[in-house]
Amino acid sequence: MIAPALRERFAAIVGPANALSPEAAGAQYLREPRDLFQGVAGLVLRPRSTEEVAAIVRLASQTGTPIVPQGGNTGLVGGQQPRSKGEILLSLSRLNAVRELDRVGRTMTVDAGAVLQTIQEAADDAGLFFPLSLGAKGTCQIGGNLSSNAGGTGALAYGTARDMCLGIEAVLPNGEIIHGLRRLKKDNRGYDLRNLLIGAEGTLGVITGAVLKLFPKPRGREVAYAGLKKAADMTALLGVAERHAGTNLTGFEFLSRAGMEMTLRHTQGARDPLDAAHEWYVLIEVTSQRSSQDARETLEALLTDALESGFVDDAVIAQSQAQAEAFWTLREEMSWAQKPEGGSIKHDVSVPVATVPDFLVKASEAVLAAMPDARIVPFGHLGDGNVHYNISQPVGADTAAFLARWDEISHLVHAVVRDFDGSFSAEHGIGVLKAKELAETKAGAEYAAMVAIKTALDPNNIMNPGKLIQI
Amino acid sequence: MIAPALRERFAAIVGPANALSPEAAGAQYLREPRDLFQGVAGLVLRPRSTEEVAAIVRLASQTGTPIVPQGGNTGLVGGQQPRSKGEILLSLSRLNAVRELDRVGRTMTVDAGAVLQTIQEAADDAGLFFPLSLGAKGTCQIGGNLSSNAGGTGALAYGTARDMCLGIEAVLPNGEIIHGLRRLKKDNRGYDLRNLLIGAEGTLGVITGAVLKLFPKPRGREVAYAGLKKAADMTALLGVAERHAGTNLTGFEFLSRAGMEMTLRHTQGARDPLDAAHEWYVLIEVTSQRSSQDARETLEALLTDALESGFVDDAVIAQSQAQAEAFWTLREEMSWAQKPEGGSIKHDVSVPVATVPDFLVKASEAVLAAMPDARIVPFGHLGDGNVHYNISQPVGADTAAFLARWDEISHLVHAVVRDFDGSFSAEHGIGVLKAKELAETKAGAEYAAMVAIKTALDPNNIMNPGKLIQI
Repeated sequence: MIAPALRERFAAIVGPANALSPEAAGAQYLREPRDLFQGVAGLVLRPRSTEEVAAIVRLASQTGTPIVPQGGNTGLVGGQQPRSKGEILLSLSRLNAVRELDRVGRTMTVDAGAVLQTIQEAADDAGLFFPLSLGAKGTCQIGGNLSSNAGGTGALAYGTARDMCLGIEAVLPNGEIIHGLRRLKKDNRGYDLRNLLIGAEGTLGVITGAVLKLFPKPRGREVAYAGLKKAADMTALLGVAERHAGTNLTGFEFLSRAGMEMTLRHTQGARDPLDAAHEWYVLIEVTSQRSSQDARETLEALLTDALESGFVDDAVIAQSQAQAEAFWTLREEMSWAQKPEGGSIKHDVSVPVATVPDFLVKASEAVLAAMPDARIVPFGHLGDGNVHYNISQPVGADTAAFLARWDEISHLVHAVVRDFDGSFSAEHGIGVLKAKELAETKAGAEYAAMVAIKTALDPNNIMNPGKLIQI
Repeated sequence: MIAPALRERFAAIVGPANALSPEAAGAQYLREPRDLFQGVAGLVLRPRSTEEVAAIVRLASQTGTPIVPQGGNTGLVGGQQPRSKGEILLSLSRLNAVRELDRVGRTMTVDAGAVLQTIQEAADDAGLFFPLSLGAKGTCQIGGNLSSNAGGTGALAYGTARDMCLGIEAVLPNGEIIHGLRRLKKDNRGYDLRNLLIGAEGTLGVITGAVLKLFPKPRGREVAYAGLKKAADMTALLGVAERHAGTNLTGFEFLSRAGMEMTLRHTQGARDPLDAAHEWYVLIEVTSQRSSQDARETLEALLTDALESGFVDDAVIAQSQAQAEAFWTLREEMSWAQKPEGGSIKHDVSVPVATVPDFLVKASEAVLAAMPDARIVPFGHLGDGNVHYNISQPVGADTAAFLARWDEISHLVHAVVRDFDGSFSAEHGIGVLKAKELAETKAGAEYAAMVAIKTALDPNNIMNPGKLIQI
């Protein structure tokens, strides 16, 4: 519980209209996309400036009041949800301006609460390109993207959110502001606080602003859809694609036949671009700084090479922008197409790129040994070694009984991930969902160093307590 | 002083042949390239394994013995030099293996003591490319490159050392080993310890190994040399170059007429590629994943565009590999060509790319007001906003008297850098040379956070004490 007198002091910082009771704030703030975590808070604050955020955190620090920062509330591991009446939900939604755009230096300075799609559009309007993109782009905010080091489909060519950020402004757990909105491509003045706060899921402070890197807008973009015989051909095809397209290879996504069938069944208007069925499908996107023609020639050359080498069974290049989008839809609807099939046990893992095919075999053996009728639906960002290793319930099975085996099945999958020196959290983060597993599996020296840093910067443990790290 | 009994205990870890007195170790370890810092040590240790490094640091931690890690000893700010008989110089030179190369995942796992050029060659032998490159490449070691987050000419397209590293192995100040040699492109498991250790100049631990990103080897590489009328044309030309070449723009370096003259005077065989004299020179490199022809077409198109727009006065494209190298030599010899001209007061600064021309004007005004005959020789990585703002002594002046004004002149230049929200250490780091200035100029909240992190991870302050951070 937050005592009424203290509530008044917090409310005075943002004004009464922006200090909401949890009941008034409602589902927009306190329910999250998968309904796995029901938020419980004592107060919801909506500051409109970095100074207000600093004043809130300062008061929280003095009074030992826990703060849970929240952006667009689209996180998948519960990191943005408060869990008790004693906690304050700090929404960054009103801090949503694009502060500055530098065309020559190709940077954009934004508030943390700016919506990702707004940022993409502002870059586009300036004749530039911001490549971070994910399903939630219309709702998620850049502060959350940075705090969770979001990945997405652009990571292959441009890296994760971390790689697209030159500087940040943040409020530390003591309420002091770090003024790090630097537009510098090289700056070696001491420890990398920026990358420490990026990916820290709000446990080391609140990101309030960022300088983002923008990129030249590609003039051409061509997309192909390829069918393959076996998983090993996917990495062979990746090698061919990289040799031909180099840094112009901007998409290399995969899905299995089972996933393709689900997508075709449940996505309105979806059509299989290929005549026959294939075990595996790869979506390839090539861009060009020069022209569509240039991108197309590269894509044709790489497919010819791959067909001759036998890595590809059949392939088709999109003949229009609309068809290119239809190809992407087949991949992007994969997340939703699993829902009508019943329960789904989900994993967000990564392994070294070269080992993805072996990983798929071993993980499948482990899962099917425990649950012979399970339907395995792996898909994801093959070029990043990032597999969404999802498992749909057996046809006709009881959903609750299936989901009750989540921990058992996850344990099996993550054990295989460990055998491949992989990560059980590739791009979604730790939050609440995986905090226990992080504590149990991260090597002692590394976890101890993380605890030491957390304790040094947040001695009262007020910043998003219990998320990511357990102390 | 290190007591004889303690010396024996350290020597026992590496064996007597690899525990050297400073006298036996000599200049290779205790003098650095600019002769600004004369190293003083009590003992030089040369471990051959990560376990030996860990044993050394453990003993150092127990006994409060300061450790100064050293790679190829090419650093320019004194970070790698011990400063008292009580300190141990820890050389990583014998830890120099290329441990593993993954062609499909495009990664190379190396020991920290591997020489940069060896790494470049190993990548090349595998048909791949490692883009980090700097003048000292034949001597510097990757551990030092990472600890100082080296920049160099490849940063424009590929980023700094930080951006080329997927994982590190390191020994923390308590002697524990972080086993972080991960080949994962996405891994969101907690705080970014890798980037914290990268750029920490050995003050938070000793990097002992790294997983490096490799890139597809470009099939074509074309270089042009352009003469420009005014500084503002350089950023206009950069815009044109980026629009045409996008991520295939792999070099954009600049020098002034004064610098060009010095290079021509003092570099054997150097010739001016252009007929007339120009105020500014830009070297442009474009690569292509497809062919030399492709790179050439892009380069021709961008130069045509720039000539028509009036941003370029004259330009020439190298007609052979040898000529391309000659163009690069004109830029690379800039560092050495200043030596025969007498004393040189050097700055390694960065400002937002768009503001480089304005910065050059303001800095020049400030310096010339204080020293009207000074010869200003700015050059560097324009595409990164990174200017080596060097000042040669007036012709005929007394060198010692000129160099005695280093602090005064630096103060003026760095004040202008601050006006542009720039950095007084773009790519060379802090070390000893700039530790005081960092403490004085870094905002309080940021510096305090750095001190808190240092204190948390190295409570006895044994790791490279007095470098980077002052506690």
